[in-house]
Amino acid sequence: MTNASLIEGVKDFQPLPANIVIFGATGDLTKRKLMPALARMYRTGLVHPQSRIIGVARDIAGAEWPDMIRTALESYAADLQYTDEEWQAFAARLRFVQGDLADADTYARLAGALDTEQGVCNALFYLAIPPEWYVQVAQGLGQVQLAGEDTGYRRIVIEKPFGLDLASAIQLNKALQDVFSESQIYRIDHYLGKESVQNLFVFRFGNSILEPLWNRNYIDHVQISVAETLGVEYRAAYYEQAGALRDMIQSHMMQVMTLVAMEPPGEYSANAVRDEKVKVLRSLRATPAAEVDRLTVAAQYGAGEIAGQKVPAYCREPGVAADSVTETFAAVRLYVDNWRWQGVPFILWYGKRMQKRASEIVIRFRQPPYNLFDSGGAPPVADALVFRLQPDEGMFLRMNAKMPGLTTRMRRLIMRGPYASATEPLFEAYEILLNDVLLGDATLFSRADEIEESWLKLAPILDAWGKRISIDRYRAGTWDVPGVDDLFAGCVGGWHKPT
Amino acid sequence: MTNASLIEGVKDFQPLPANIVIFGATGDLTKRKLMPALARMYRTGLVHPQSRIIGVARDIAGAEWPDMIRTALESYAADLQYTDEEWQAFAARLRFVQGDLADADTYARLAGALDTEQGVCNALFYLAIPPEWYVQVAQGLGQVQLAGEDTGYRRIVIEKPFGLDLASAIQLNKALQDVFSESQIYRIDHYLGKESVQNLFVFRFGNSILEPLWNRNYIDHVQISVAETLGVEYRAAYYEQAGALRDMIQSHMMQVMTLVAMEPPGEYSANAVRDEKVKVLRSLRATPAAEVDRLTVAAQYGAGEIAGQKVPAYCREPGVAADSVTETFAAVRLYVDNWRWQGVPFILWYGKRMQKRASEIVIRFRQPPYNLFDSGGAPPVADALVFRLQPDEGMFLRMNAKMPGLTTRMRRLIMRGPYASATEPLFEAYEILLNDVLLGDATLFSRADEIEESWLKLAPILDAWGKRISIDRYRAGTWDVPGVDDLFAGCVGGWHKPT
Repeated sequence: MTNASLIEGVKDFQPLPANIVIFGATGDLTKRKLMPALARMYRTGLVHPQSRIIGVARDIAGAEWPDMIRTALESYAADLQYTDEEWQAFAARLRFVQGDLADADTYARLAGALDTEQGVCNALFYLAIPPEWYVQVAQGLGQVQLAGEDTGYRRIVIEKPFGLDLASAIQLNKALQDVFSESQIYRIDHYLGKESVQNLFVFRFGNSILEPLWNRNYIDHVQISVAETLGVEYRAAYYEQAGALRDMIQSHMMQVMTLVAMEPPGEYSANAVRDEKVKVLRSLRATPAAEVDRLTVAAQYGAGEIAGQKVPAYCREPGVAADSVTETFAAVRLYVDNWRWQGVPFILWYGKRMQKRASEIVIRFRQPPYNLFDSGGAPPVADALVFRLQPDEGMFLRMNAKMPGLTTRMRRLIMRGPYASATEPLFEAYEILLNDVLLGDATLFSRADEIEESWLKLAPILDAWGKRISIDRYRAGTWDVPGVDDLFAGCVGGWHKPT
Repeated sequence: MTNASLIEGVKDFQPLPANIVIFGATGDLTKRKLMPALARMYRTGLVHPQSRIIGVARDIAGAEWPDMIRTALESYAADLQYTDEEWQAFAARLRFVQGDLADADTYARLAGALDTEQGVCNALFYLAIPPEWYVQVAQGLGQVQLAGEDTGYRRIVIEKPFGLDLASAIQLNKALQDVFSESQIYRIDHYLGKESVQNLFVFRFGNSILEPLWNRNYIDHVQISVAETLGVEYRAAYYEQAGALRDMIQSHMMQVMTLVAMEPPGEYSANAVRDEKVKVLRSLRATPAAEVDRLTVAAQYGAGEIAGQKVPAYCREPGVAADSVTETFAAVRLYVDNWRWQGVPFILWYGKRMQKRASEIVIRFRQPPYNLFDSGGAPPVADALVFRLQPDEGMFLRMNAKMPGLTTRMRRLIMRGPYASATEPLFEAYEILLNDVLLGDATLFSRADEIEESWLKLAPILDAWGKRISIDRYRAGTWDVPGVDDLFAGCVGGWHKPT
């Protein structure tokens, strides 16, 4: 991540000096993701050397923060290997404001801690805190005149969940927009910062042979999947309230879906791209209440084994109610009712405690019309274009070729295109996205209307699922989730489990 | 070639017992290609164990032939590793008829040497002799009633050249058809026996995503190339008369072109496939005399270096006239004037003494309409689908993907699909084609009308080139052939040299 060629490669992306303010400076996200990203960016020049990184938290004194960060970096950015001198230089950029987010004085002291070099005060406010605090912090910043952009840019970054349903999303957007303009608000979705997700977009519009095939005439269905082997971990409190549909599908996976389904934008700019994404969501069919059973699957993991280790059922995890009906697996079969996609199922599924960790986008083409080489036989297997996000980022084209030998029988040919060579450093999603915020490029961030539209379209499913009093179980460490095969009814090749 | 899995795999392709007669039994083709193929086929069961292999030649006595063959197999089929017992079994299938091809008695004695088990006498006559003897041998066979199929099948196999121009091809076809019916005549083209050429056909019609792109709307041009590092070798006498256009382009390369360009046949049968191939040739535009200069390139190799070794100019090779104007490099830019291909150049080129040995079919798609990610910049590089016939048989898809890092710039991504794994035995072209003859499958053999049509369409070029009194030279071991870049005028990406 920090080699010379990388530093060479980032020259065009160096931002202005800025005050990078992290609310929730002692939290998990800060330690695991934000500070490792910022420390690497400082090393390569992607954080300007005159920037300040200002932590805000209640629970420690300012003097403790640099040590806390150094310890965190040793765990989560061990590659940086600080010399004392390097550490002193980086630590000199750190500031800390101790205070309660409910206390107006915290914001006043924060304002005093900002560097205002020659009257310019660029500031990025990262809200690495629970969402119930978002509005209060925004208002606190507004009250000390840190929302206006008179003396530099001011940008606020928030993490999902952006509401838990349509009403709460509208409310949140409105409250934030009372203080900041929409162009200052960066709703971060780290999935969109993954290099391979961005490549999906570049690959689609950087080649001439995909666009002619990219429609209902040639595509049978699209599958977007994220399978994890982890369980709920330490997030039971949030998860009990959210579940897989809200946590993964409404956010990351519908965002990816819009990238697959969107029309070519007129230009590569934040609003042109997001206009096309929101058009997809507007064309998305809201699942009729009567169809929710047929077009969705919800399930919860039971006890099982992952990699030879016994793991407990979800409902026995700490913090989870014994009679919980929260889904840890969610699948939805969606339709985009427009000229390009009418009738093509988009099947999105996410599961915890699956057999294998994998995330894929599978574009499954229609089956060849018949088998020229065996007219009585079945048509050849349908082709597929696969974008693998993890593990082993890359693209695969699954086609049919002649089996070697005295035959015209076919077998599967997999054309492989690794996304990067093994020695090429890839950027972490948070580095890419923080760089975008520092440069003011909102292309990969969700706009308010996208968020609201996606909640609107999921509302019938949320309503139906909200009335659930029991839920199917699947054994942890397996693919045996009831109902998924039926969800793929009529899709060529059926459910494609990662292999 | 002879492992157990291969023997397992050929069960469906085992032919009836047959008399396999080779005219030219002491010649180069017999030693290098035919007997190695037949010996392997005998080993795996693709030549029925009760078959006879009967050599016909004038220059040795019958007793010498088995030893000559054993020596040849030691050189050209060393993998067979005969035990004495195995050799005795194979040698017991060999017969020899000594005689002059001009002598009617030779054919009478051949008739006596055939095995006519229970009145059945299947026979395959392979004419591994110079083409000027084809008609005489056919007539000789006819005179001893070896052309009719009353007591078993009778098939005659001939090698190119099938004439040297339209008139001679028509004459040859007519003379052969006076004795044999067209369905008994197998014009062999070993290029069509290559697994990867057959795969071109299977790949095209075994997948759903190629056919929609396979036309003038998406394909910019097609390049079919064979580059050799060898010079004229021992073939000067023939080559001085033929040249690269007749030797390679009229035969192998136009055959491959028809496979690329053909419409999907209604069924996979010899006549359905060949009907479609001949349709392509009928739609082929005969190059207008006035355009021959612009649409063709002829050149001859001069002295140079190949792999560090000095090699002489063509005109100094043994058997070549010092003022020879025979081309050792030929390139033609052809057009197929039909609904699918109108305006798409098909550029076929062949060269001896090139820098590198390689044979490829490049389907070059149109350039993407513009660069979404850099609207002022050039459009992305055009995609290409490459079938490599040699070396390293396989398919490649050359596309554009995102460059890793903080950028939406693109770089070339090569998706690779090797045709077979390194451990998989591939059949030699002659094994595949001899098996087809034994099974009576003429799909991969050229029909009379194909041959005549291709000569017809090349006639203006042959006429113009026939009047040539000088020829451009290129340095052996280089790609510096004058005029080739111009031949690719307007083709996206220009001349694609193998790399």
